[in-house]
Amino acid sequence: MWCHLAASIEIICVGNELLIGKTLNTNAHWLAKRVTSLGMSARRIIVVGDDVNEISDVILEAIQRNPDFILTSGGLGPTFDDVTLEGLAKGLGRRLQKNDEALRMVREKYRKYVEEGRMKRVELTPPRVKMAKLPQGGEPLPNPVGTAPGVVVSTDNLTIIALPGVPSEMKAIFDESALPILKKAAGDTIFFETSIEATGVMESELAPSIARAMHDNPYVYIKSHPKGEERIHRIEFHLSTMAKNAIIARERVGKALLQLSETIVERGGRVNPAKAKS
Amino acid sequence: MWCHLAASIEIICVGNELLIGKTLNTNAHWLAKRVTSLGMSARRIIVVGDDVNEISDVILEAIQRNPDFILTSGGLGPTFDDVTLEGLAKGLGRRLQKNDEALRMVREKYRKYVEEGRMKRVELTPPRVKMAKLPQGGEPLPNPVGTAPGVVVSTDNLTIIALPGVPSEMKAIFDESALPILKKAAGDTIFFETSIEATGVMESELAPSIARAMHDNPYVYIKSHPKGEERIHRIEFHLSTMAKNAIIARERVGKALLQLSETIVERGGRVNPAKAKS
Repeated sequence: MWCHLAASIEIICVGNELLIGKTLNTNAHWLAKRVTSLGMSARRIIVVGDDVNEISDVILEAIQRNPDFILTSGGLGPTFDDVTLEGLAKGLGRRLQKNDEALRMVREKYRKYVEEGRMKRVELTPPRVKMAKLPQGGEPLPNPVGTAPGVVVSTDNLTIIALPGVPSEMKAIFDESALPILKKAAGDTIFFETSIEATGVMESELAPSIARAMHDNPYVYIKSHPKGEERIHRIEFHLSTMAKNAIIARERVGKALLQLSETIVERGGRVNPAKAKS
Repeated sequence: MWCHLAASIEIICVGNELLIGKTLNTNAHWLAKRVTSLGMSARRIIVVGDDVNEISDVILEAIQRNPDFILTSGGLGPTFDDVTLEGLAKGLGRRLQKNDEALRMVREKYRKYVEEGRMKRVELTPPRVKMAKLPQGGEPLPNPVGTAPGVVVSTDNLTIIALPGVPSEMKAIFDESALPILKKAAGDTIFFETSIEATGVMESELAPSIARAMHDNPYVYIKSHPKGEERIHRIEFHLSTMAKNAIIARERVGKALLQLSETIVERGGRVNPAKAKS
């Protein structure tokens, strides 16, 4: 398959707000795009509620599928229902332990808030200390935007990175601390994608040609997205590959693109120019 | 727990485009909101690639968690990588079977396209017939917008509803065919939610009060969403409940809202007026 050389990732998003349809899961989308652009392969995205046992179950299930990385987002804050680290510890069979470095990060944040006049004095109340209790063996990742640190925990073959649910905090910790960790594992693999649009021909008519193009180009993934308009048939084709370098990637995708375009035209369709995306 | 009286649902979204971060998963958001508004509880959302074995695994895992419903979206079309029904059949240990009613629906669609001059004649090629091959015992749900019918398959305690991934088609089949099925199971349970905004007080400071408000109002779920601004503390509180009727729901949420507002003000914060959402 086209993506077997890539390191595999599962994304777990924690939050009842996602399950009740209050919040659109832009975090999963952002993370998936990000890891894909690193040449890694997101195998599954799971959304689960703020519940220790559910989180622990999801972690255990993911571990059994043997990914290289698990990224979580959400549930690192100070309130009673921020229970991702507890669920993570339970899933890993480890204890939650106050981490000195994490506590230092949290204290430093509150000290800064005092300096800025946002609070009177640093009080490390239990909800605040909670943010510094990590699964045994875990290490905190500094949060440049908010208070709760991210967390990285490793086992023999797996690295779990826990990020906050507030998008600005998640992105900041990802870019500052998760990216260097992931990049090391990603090696030289790159992801390359492009799209073309076909009009005037039906998806069902092109289905055999797409299958043939996939067969002839085993490392290129071709996906058709019918645009669902009533009168004009419009299909977006998305072509992507993982490769060791950009030259190979462009050659592969270019060859598949050519074959696909020819087949669309042969069947009476029109091809609109490709929009290069990366 | 606040939502135990509700029928439980798992949402499974199929599509590589979601895993590579090409497409934002608005389908899961729409479905989650919809089932929640029916007084049902979405327990998990899972995104998986266009792969028969992966889909089958995800279905099997979901079945073991014993939900009342599984909703899938994506993978019902004519192309080689539209394999949701194959994965579903495999997960259920059933065969894929050409369904006469489904075939009639597909044929009817193409007949309409011919009438509209969008194609010359109805040809039921293998990719088109594929859309009418359902897991044994399954029934097709008419697609008022596109070609591929939705599918409903039931076992003793579980109903699985498969919807297309094109949002307009998914929504149309959901509203026309899935809604009546779900409504029957939902009974009289309703979901009620509202939000308030607190400023001038930190989330970590309010954490014990939120825990107390939750404890005192066991049927109300209170969730704080820090807005992550640098200088001004701003927290959105979302309060929701499932109840047998609107009067009970409003009483419960109203009582919790009052307690929470009082505690925010006691701690020096300000409460901005509630925005009623339903």
